[in-house]
Amino acid sequence: MAVESTKKESWVLTVMAQTPTNIAVIKYWGKRDESLILPINDSISVTLDPSHLCTTTTVAVSPSFTSDRMWLNGKEIPLSGGRYQNCLREIRSRASDVEDAEKGIKITKKDWEKLHLHIASYNNFPTAAGLASSAAGFACLVFSLAKLMNVKEDNGQLSAIARQGSGSACRSLYGGFVKWIMGKDDKGSDSIAVQLVDENHWDELVILIAVVSSRQKETSSTSGMRETVDTSPLIQHRAAEVVPKRILQMEEAIKNRDFPTFVQLTCSDSNQFHAVCLDTSPPIFYMNDTSHRIISCVEKWNRSEETPQVAYTFDAGPNAVLIARNRKTAALLLQRLLFHFPPQSDADLNSYVVGDKSILKDAGIQDIKDIEALPPPPEIKDIIPAQKFTGDVSYFICTKPGKGPILITDEDKALLNPETGLPK
Amino acid sequence: MAVESTKKESWVLTVMAQTPTNIAVIKYWGKRDESLILPINDSISVTLDPSHLCTTTTVAVSPSFTSDRMWLNGKEIPLSGGRYQNCLREIRSRASDVEDAEKGIKITKKDWEKLHLHIASYNNFPTAAGLASSAAGFACLVFSLAKLMNVKEDNGQLSAIARQGSGSACRSLYGGFVKWIMGKDDKGSDSIAVQLVDENHWDELVILIAVVSSRQKETSSTSGMRETVDTSPLIQHRAAEVVPKRILQMEEAIKNRDFPTFVQLTCSDSNQFHAVCLDTSPPIFYMNDTSHRIISCVEKWNRSEETPQVAYTFDAGPNAVLIARNRKTAALLLQRLLFHFPPQSDADLNSYVVGDKSILKDAGIQDIKDIEALPPPPEIKDIIPAQKFTGDVSYFICTKPGKGPILITDEDKALLNPETGLPK
Repeated sequence: MAVESTKKESWVLTVMAQTPTNIAVIKYWGKRDESLILPINDSISVTLDPSHLCTTTTVAVSPSFTSDRMWLNGKEIPLSGGRYQNCLREIRSRASDVEDAEKGIKITKKDWEKLHLHIASYNNFPTAAGLASSAAGFACLVFSLAKLMNVKEDNGQLSAIARQGSGSACRSLYGGFVKWIMGKDDKGSDSIAVQLVDENHWDELVILIAVVSSRQKETSSTSGMRETVDTSPLIQHRAAEVVPKRILQMEEAIKNRDFPTFVQLTCSDSNQFHAVCLDTSPPIFYMNDTSHRIISCVEKWNRSEETPQVAYTFDAGPNAVLIARNRKTAALLLQRLLFHFPPQSDADLNSYVVGDKSILKDAGIQDIKDIEALPPPPEIKDIIPAQKFTGDVSYFICTKPGKGPILITDEDKALLNPETGLPK
Repeated sequence: MAVESTKKESWVLTVMAQTPTNIAVIKYWGKRDESLILPINDSISVTLDPSHLCTTTTVAVSPSFTSDRMWLNGKEIPLSGGRYQNCLREIRSRASDVEDAEKGIKITKKDWEKLHLHIASYNNFPTAAGLASSAAGFACLVFSLAKLMNVKEDNGQLSAIARQGSGSACRSLYGGFVKWIMGKDDKGSDSIAVQLVDENHWDELVILIAVVSSRQKETSSTSGMRETVDTSPLIQHRAAEVVPKRILQMEEAIKNRDFPTFVQLTCSDSNQFHAVCLDTSPPIFYMNDTSHRIISCVEKWNRSEETPQVAYTFDAGPNAVLIARNRKTAALLLQRLLFHFPPQSDADLNSYVVGDKSILKDAGIQDIKDIEALPPPPEIKDIIPAQKFTGDVSYFICTKPGKGPILITDEDKALLNPETGLPK
């Protein structure tokens, strides 16, 4: 332990990790235990490529630290909340001996109870944009601390800890498609994430996210789902009767890369989640007119083709997550979206479509003028004049299914100074 | 019969009636028989004052008519549709002898099978505004024809005929609060409307309708409810488990003039109807951002008071129907609505608030400047700046619960020329 170290009080041990965000295709909405965060139904998500959407976290331990501290996107935030405390307690209780011969550091299992931690976390996407930043955040917190503390548990067991920070965080412990099993245990030991398939299984899929401008302040998902469970006469029927069937069908669809079934289930389940929000008293509206218009655009296109081209899903906010069957379809989708939702005239194309920008080339868009020149999609040819909603989408992110958490060994990227343990 | 009449071929016999529209507070959505229009659950509505919202219909019979013809708001429309044909057939089969000694007219029960009808109908409100014009229209068609043909059936039995024109039309056969009993008979004989209380029972209530501007083409309620029944996993649970309880509670609330319970049930049931629309595949959106904002405004106000002040309900469109507990509350509601949804600057106050305009005086509004001077409602004082949505409401209608169908004897008001039987 530090006390035994020859470099007493002077060392700082750090670990850095990167964790993806995820988007549910069968939704989690409603807890059966508020404090342990145990859900009322299973859910299934797709992990998003961390190159475009991820949290990076550096955790550090040092005998010189006098309290647990955390910085999010460079700003210190309190760790006093129950959710952080639950994760820290659970991780600490599983810590093992750690030895760094090179640095002359030896920490025993018991020392972890007294040592303080510094945590610095950074999202490579806007935290407030409603893109599940807390899922990636808590997954990364738990994953990086587990590595720092030499926790022997596998990612499934870690997922049960991340779950206590933010329910959907448990699904960010794996890449590809992931199922969060609701479990039966009152203590939540079996409420864990499992990987259904990895990110290479269905690597044709392309994901476009429309970040939708919103003037409303949204209900947090924590209080929203509590109100739904307390007041919606439909939520229990959804959880007990509808979701279990959809989970089985979705697992099959993913296994078989059955895109039409995947689309049908994904869209229906997103809509049913928003339906139970509306069935809440007072009602919760996460989608707005722009969200509705994106759905109409996709539904019209899907029905005009022999087989569905795109699935849509919306979380607790107006942003659309659109899953295209392949790159070609994604380019056609982007053309449609840019036609209906062109940027403001003073916008920069480079900041209007972010992530995998090569989609722009596939869609034949090289500058803003190419957007103005887009013809109306053939399926709306009867609707004259075609409707345009300039400025209603803030920007688009092009991404794809991605991998799970990874350790980052490049110390230059660390968010904490390896000497002081404070943010760089 | 005409053939026996001394004034052969020359007479025209007319009847004129006026029928109110109605708005459901426990919603009808979903049929178990498409052709007979039999619903999957009971519903309850409030009849609206016909002075502000009604259909007036003149029906005429003459041996000189060569076919059944109908004019709606001055324009001839085809009567070939199954719904019109069903109503005409059912009414004709119940016709009795009619004698007008003064005019020297005698029509026997059997004659009605061969005599042709002219029908002219007029709505005192915009047909396309989504204000249940078909309910008032079919109720008036059936009621006026029943009077013309000396049909002996009571309004309950007539309601089962009007139902076959438009489901909700059956509820327009009575004033006050009306229940449409779904019935059990496969032929629909027991799927009729009954009056719960007349319009004097709860005469404090004041109803404000916000006619909301919409750029979307809406799904017709006929195809919408068919798609919901075919695709929503929640609709059967709603119809079988949720609505029956709400019907009993609503009947009690109306009987006891229990406004808080009335508000809770009305708002919840409107929201659940829109929830099952959203749970439909593809999803149906009737409410838009303006509808959502009106709900938020009412919910915020209701929660800031000791007891709810206003109920809201939305049919298959974005218009809000707001039911205030009394005139004082209605004036306070109008202030709030005008604050958030002021008219365009060039608007005329006289056409921005229609119906019972005396509400404007109660609200202290005498011209457009008084709207600009309205302070933010106290319950939103923390939200700075308060949001205004100029032009998002087309106009407001102030009305109240009203009476059922009546005959109009003033021949000057008839829509058909008493000599020719053609529109005036």
